[in-house]
Amino acid sequence: MREDENAAGAAQTETASRLRQQIIEAANEHFSRYGYAKTTVSDLAREIGFSKAYIYKFFSSKQEIGESICRECLGDILQAIDQAIMEAPSASEKLRRFVLTATREAVRLFFNDRKIYEIAAHSAAEGWSSTVEHCSRLRERMVAIVQEGRSSGEFERKTPLDDVIRAIMAVILPLTNPLMLQYVLDAADTAALDISSLVLRSLAP
Amino acid sequence: MREDENAAGAAQTETASRLRQQIIEAANEHFSRYGYAKTTVSDLAREIGFSKAYIYKFFSSKQEIGESICRECLGDILQAIDQAIMEAPSASEKLRRFVLTATREAVRLFFNDRKIYEIAAHSAAEGWSSTVEHCSRLRERMVAIVQEGRSSGEFERKTPLDDVIRAIMAVILPLTNPLMLQYVLDAADTAALDISSLVLRSLAP
Repeated sequence: MREDENAAGAAQTETASRLRQQIIEAANEHFSRYGYAKTTVSDLAREIGFSKAYIYKFFSSKQEIGESICRECLGDILQAIDQAIMEAPSASEKLRRFVLTATREAVRLFFNDRKIYEIAAHSAAEGWSSTVEHCSRLRERMVAIVQEGRSSGEFERKTPLDDVIRAIMAVILPLTNPLMLQYVLDAADTAALDISSLVLRSLAP
Repeated sequence: MREDENAAGAAQTETASRLRQQIIEAANEHFSRYGYAKTTVSDLAREIGFSKAYIYKFFSSKQEIGESICRECLGDILQAIDQAIMEAPSASEKLRRFVLTATREAVRLFFNDRKIYEIAAHSAAEGWSSTVEHCSRLRERMVAIVQEGRSSGEFERKTPLDDVIRAIMAVILPLTNPLMLQYVLDAADTAALDISSLVLRSLAP
């Protein structure tokens, strides 16, 4: 009996999660076409064929839907970075690939999916949790790279790790923050190479 | 006779230059209050008590007036930088003061004279000559500092100077570009210190 109840509960959760995902996908498509700012929850409801009240069963606000979409697209960028650094032969090469991939993925999003890029920019401007979490994940990756380089002797160890990381995150911000990246798009690749080379020189033992 | 003509010509030029400056000052005040975008040349003319046609004798467009104002305010920032680095005892200290002063002056402009800051931001977005010239002057200062540090043995000399300068200008961009600075205002001082320390580590011989 208890097992049946558990199974029923699990099935319900699965259905809820599938419906949630369905709303996110429909919203993603709608936002991609008309933009986040111009779309209301009523528009979305009409588009998906659900009632507005039904959507509010899964999301407390339009922002929550926006955050979910933003989380997915930032998640894709993070995955691309992880893939790029995974097989790099050294910490230096990891750092280089991190910066270049983060930049190229954001530039790709800008040119291929401008309206979703705008959600990411909005998220950064408003300090949404999707952006805050993304920044802290990027930071974690950078800490791991610098620690690896310190262990292998590639990087200096005198400067406190926190200072090094804070400074690196500050200098790569124009490449990782969609609000800033839009102003360096023309030269984003060059900037990524220049900045990562400068960072590597700063890390030399 | 010829001397009289020359003197008359010089007096005319001086008057023209004084009138031009008068228009710039009135425009500055008007823009400070109502913003650049919302002010027309007709508004300015009414405010100053000149005819629109008269203003067009000195400026070909509203943008030209905006550029003059922008040039003055960027000139003030540059002067503050020059003053700050003048008596610094070393190239490293010059670099530190350069970055900190550029940041603080721009932050000051943002908080004290938001509408003029907006002209500077607009100028940066549109690539006005006032911004292009300012950037090239900042770059000149940075070249001089790095060259001084290379001569004195404070800085390394292996990396091509052009690469070093391009990278430094890229990492300080969030502090010197008003479009970007607005996103790091809360932590501008910390960012300036972190970034200049990172740059100095990258320059270590």
